[in-house]
Amino acid sequence: MKIYRVNMTKLTVTSEGVPEKWHKLGGRALTSTIIAEEVEPTCHPLGKKNKLVFAPGLLTGTAAANSGRMSVGSKSPLTGGIKESNSGGSAAQKLAKLGIKALIIEGKPEDNTFYSLHVDISGVKIQEETELVGKGNYEVIDKLSKKFGDRIGVITIGQAGEYKMSAANISIKDYHGYIRSAGRGGLGAVMSSKKIKYITIDDQGGPGVPITDKNKFMDAARIFAKGLKEHPVTGQGLPTYGTNVLVNILNEAGGLPTKNFRMGRFEGANKISGETMYEYIVDRKGKPTHNCHAGCVISCSQVYNDKDGNFVTAGFEYETIWGFGAVCMVDDLDIIAQADRICDDIGIDTIETAVAISTAMEGGIIPFGDGQGMLGLLREIGKGSYLGRIIGNGAAFTGKAFGVDRVAVVKNQAIPAYDPRAVKGIGVTYATTPMGADHTAGYSVTHNVLKVGGHIDPLVKEGNIKLSRDLQIATAAIDSAGLCLFVAFSLLDKPEVYQAMIDLIDARIGPNTTEDDIIELGKYVLGVERKFNEAAGINKAADRLPEFFEEPVPPHNVAWDFTAEELDEVFNFVDGEKKELQYC
Amino acid sequence: MKIYRVNMTKLTVTSEGVPEKWHKLGGRALTSTIIAEEVEPTCHPLGKKNKLVFAPGLLTGTAAANSGRMSVGSKSPLTGGIKESNSGGSAAQKLAKLGIKALIIEGKPEDNTFYSLHVDISGVKIQEETELVGKGNYEVIDKLSKKFGDRIGVITIGQAGEYKMSAANISIKDYHGYIRSAGRGGLGAVMSSKKIKYITIDDQGGPGVPITDKNKFMDAARIFAKGLKEHPVTGQGLPTYGTNVLVNILNEAGGLPTKNFRMGRFEGANKISGETMYEYIVDRKGKPTHNCHAGCVISCSQVYNDKDGNFVTAGFEYETIWGFGAVCMVDDLDIIAQADRICDDIGIDTIETAVAISTAMEGGIIPFGDGQGMLGLLREIGKGSYLGRIIGNGAAFTGKAFGVDRVAVVKNQAIPAYDPRAVKGIGVTYATTPMGADHTAGYSVTHNVLKVGGHIDPLVKEGNIKLSRDLQIATAAIDSAGLCLFVAFSLLDKPEVYQAMIDLIDARIGPNTTEDDIIELGKYVLGVERKFNEAAGINKAADRLPEFFEEPVPPHNVAWDFTAEELDEVFNFVDGEKKELQYC
Repeated sequence: MKIYRVNMTKLTVTSEGVPEKWHKLGGRALTSTIIAEEVEPTCHPLGKKNKLVFAPGLLTGTAAANSGRMSVGSKSPLTGGIKESNSGGSAAQKLAKLGIKALIIEGKPEDNTFYSLHVDISGVKIQEETELVGKGNYEVIDKLSKKFGDRIGVITIGQAGEYKMSAANISIKDYHGYIRSAGRGGLGAVMSSKKIKYITIDDQGGPGVPITDKNKFMDAARIFAKGLKEHPVTGQGLPTYGTNVLVNILNEAGGLPTKNFRMGRFEGANKISGETMYEYIVDRKGKPTHNCHAGCVISCSQVYNDKDGNFVTAGFEYETIWGFGAVCMVDDLDIIAQADRICDDIGIDTIETAVAISTAMEGGIIPFGDGQGMLGLLREIGKGSYLGRIIGNGAAFTGKAFGVDRVAVVKNQAIPAYDPRAVKGIGVTYATTPMGADHTAGYSVTHNVLKVGGHIDPLVKEGNIKLSRDLQIATAAIDSAGLCLFVAFSLLDKPEVYQAMIDLIDARIGPNTTEDDIIELGKYVLGVERKFNEAAGINKAADRLPEFFEEPVPPHNVAWDFTAEELDEVFNFVDGEKKELQYC
Repeated sequence: MKIYRVNMTKLTVTSEGVPEKWHKLGGRALTSTIIAEEVEPTCHPLGKKNKLVFAPGLLTGTAAANSGRMSVGSKSPLTGGIKESNSGGSAAQKLAKLGIKALIIEGKPEDNTFYSLHVDISGVKIQEETELVGKGNYEVIDKLSKKFGDRIGVITIGQAGEYKMSAANISIKDYHGYIRSAGRGGLGAVMSSKKIKYITIDDQGGPGVPITDKNKFMDAARIFAKGLKEHPVTGQGLPTYGTNVLVNILNEAGGLPTKNFRMGRFEGANKISGETMYEYIVDRKGKPTHNCHAGCVISCSQVYNDKDGNFVTAGFEYETIWGFGAVCMVDDLDIIAQADRICDDIGIDTIETAVAISTAMEGGIIPFGDGQGMLGLLREIGKGSYLGRIIGNGAAFTGKAFGVDRVAVVKNQAIPAYDPRAVKGIGVTYATTPMGADHTAGYSVTHNVLKVGGHIDPLVKEGNIKLSRDLQIATAAIDSAGLCLFVAFSLLDKPEVYQAMIDLIDARIGPNTTEDDIIELGKYVLGVERKFNEAAGINKAADRLPEFFEEPVPPHNVAWDFTAEELDEVFNFVDGEKKELQYC
């Protein structure tokens, strides 16, 4: 396999072999390693010293189920720390099939011209781009699909990215032409600072991903896929209702943050639930079940149409519906779907933006519950108006603009859809992950709410520090493998599926990869990321939740009560700068 | 003397004796100690856990020349770290004469009502305020002077403060009714978060400040005042031309940051210089010489009129004229004076706001040199428009809003009027002071440019780390004494004036205060502040300049070339959390 480096200062491309030390790294492990090794931690995230790295996971491009994830790494303009933002879609598999281990974008042009990159078997081409500059992601993908054919892979930024907003995401086309997002941390702004509007990927003739032990791989792949299909969450709940199955579950658990995190239950929950959404989708001839990448056996995505049966959005996730729904007190699923559509089109993170709007509501810019006002604010982002510049830079920025001190962020990144007081394991993850508040970094909803992998009481502290630590380590490994996080449900409940994952990785990069190696990989990744953050100026004082979480949240009236010392125990396995990290 | 605590959650006032451990502290030493002891470092700066402390210096309220400075302390909404913002005006002397060592504002009201405080010999009264809410500082001071008489002391916030903007200052009336500012770090936003529009101070009947050895004090006071009057800088340059004498000096030195820090000389310098300003003032019947507090023998302030002889502004400082002048490429002194007037009226820091506008110019919002456009942006701040909310939150915020990566800030605070590449000692101060970029924290322009206290080459690294360290220590002590920083010129050149300062402090709080105690006091203050910042999440990675200073600046073509290790040597006397600080 190989590494491509695109230097946007010189407008040159170089190709190099994969250094020995990176052979066993992929996805997040590779992006975080490259950023930590090559980016000055105190550099400006939008300056020429930052880099943007795309890396498929170790298993991406193989026949392993649910292995098509892309890691995008950089220094984040939102958090100021290291960022790995993770997405489905077709791009990761196409890069992997071309034998590309990582695509590293460096430097930035002096002038104001936008460019595109085209990646195929012959290499990477840089071309000036004018036609699609200023256009939304749907139009970009549509035009590029017409130009190159439907099979083309596309990585693109919308207007939010072009404006270099800190909440701008990187959008990735899926096989159906819909949009998936590397949503968090503002990496769309970094892509824009490099003056790249889009990247097209044609994987025809690609050599594919090397497998060390093909028989072992195919055996493990069968067990792995079967395990995913047989688990009730990944075999039934997610395929039927999508991730939005969680609205009713979290509402019942009292952990659905409502009205800017004042309450744990939303009276309009039923109107925006997965069950209601399923009925709408079926009635309106949408698709209740749909996959975000080839080889996905879960298919938690869906296609959502309006009342007239016209397409509105796809990949309509729980966190988006919670965000534009409960936290902003909007109980109209069609408005929320339009909000998702606008965010996908202009290329902005739905979680960050929903919490930013909830913060603007707190500041009195529009009232809570004002769905049309909310859509208006989203359109301002697309226009790049002054108001749009405020909201589009995220929740902390919006709070500062409007003098609001009730702002749900950690390390400047908005807190997602699970109240940290009523789901304490995820609160520990929000506080301590190097990513800033991120539910996917250690998704304790498994044990806390769904009782997958055991049960740990979400309302009390006991067990939740260890739970978050273990899940953060496991997740860092899963993100490095290129696996969808949802494989965790099955891994946690079924030892043979867990072993199958280890066997897949061993058969791919082995021999002799063991469970210990996978755990070491997870610890290594977190250690690299923590070390970068410390050098970037983010110390343990940033591993805290905002003070307003000391208020009890109804209905359980539980408050956030972890001490600083307890939170600092999460990373007791990382010895800061003193210990050389061993995995590589 | 006593301490007043005003609890704005409960709307109560308590009075307490001065604890033994605070007896020898005043000004910055006291505000920083109180913030460090009583404020949770990770709290939200605009939340109920932050405090706002007003403390006159140790010598304030005495007959010592130039001792009327006020320290205002808090956790800064701009930097996120500890802040001492320092101002002239009459309030500090009036608090001191009432025997008030510190006025501590705590908590915040739940509702949206504004209040005023009235301080007199009988105590502190909290009253609801409606009439002056939304009004600018000039109107506030005018109405309050009419109500209470011209002698009333006033501390107030303008509209920028009311909007809780991170660049909002706290304005302090001088004896003539003009405005002085505790300018830096956004403390006006903190005062607003406490819902206090203004504080009036009536010092009639106050007991005054206790002096331990009156004879020694009066002898030292005579030598001290004489020394100030006889030094060429404080006896001639500053009284005649004000601080704006520096435009020509810095331009000549190649250290006048121009066009968002691209150049060290401004071709319009002569049009905005102190010499030109002096002619305008004399021609238009303004006052070229004017003091900001009683007992000032320097009188560097002035009253600036327009072409028709109408008052425009007072306290028209070099840094303001540089900011709205050179860095924004505006060479019209009348426009700059209007900019200063607007900033004083709406209550916003001129340095932060000028660099914010320069950053907006960088982002193409208005062109460099567009003076009318600049005034328009300032008016937007006063209106609280979305654009105003952006600019009013400072340079870093403006850079983020407009995707600009050339932003001259350290710890989020704008870099002032001396290019750190061409005046390297001040660059070291910008990088390392706990305050964020602040020229007053260690004003190396003395040795680097004016050759006061010796000469250290401003263009090379040698000697500038030690220079900044020594000056930061001395300044922390001067700020604690309540002395104007300009006494330093005379202190540095004349041993008898230096000894007189020590004798003044000894006669006030002694006996047996020595030079070592004064140096220990300075070190103690810096140690307390560094420790707070570390606990607030600001580590040594924040002690760096933005990467664009690696570009050489004409005319000397010198770049910023200090290594991280060199900068980390500045605080080699502070042992972080390990060493107990000894001064108290």
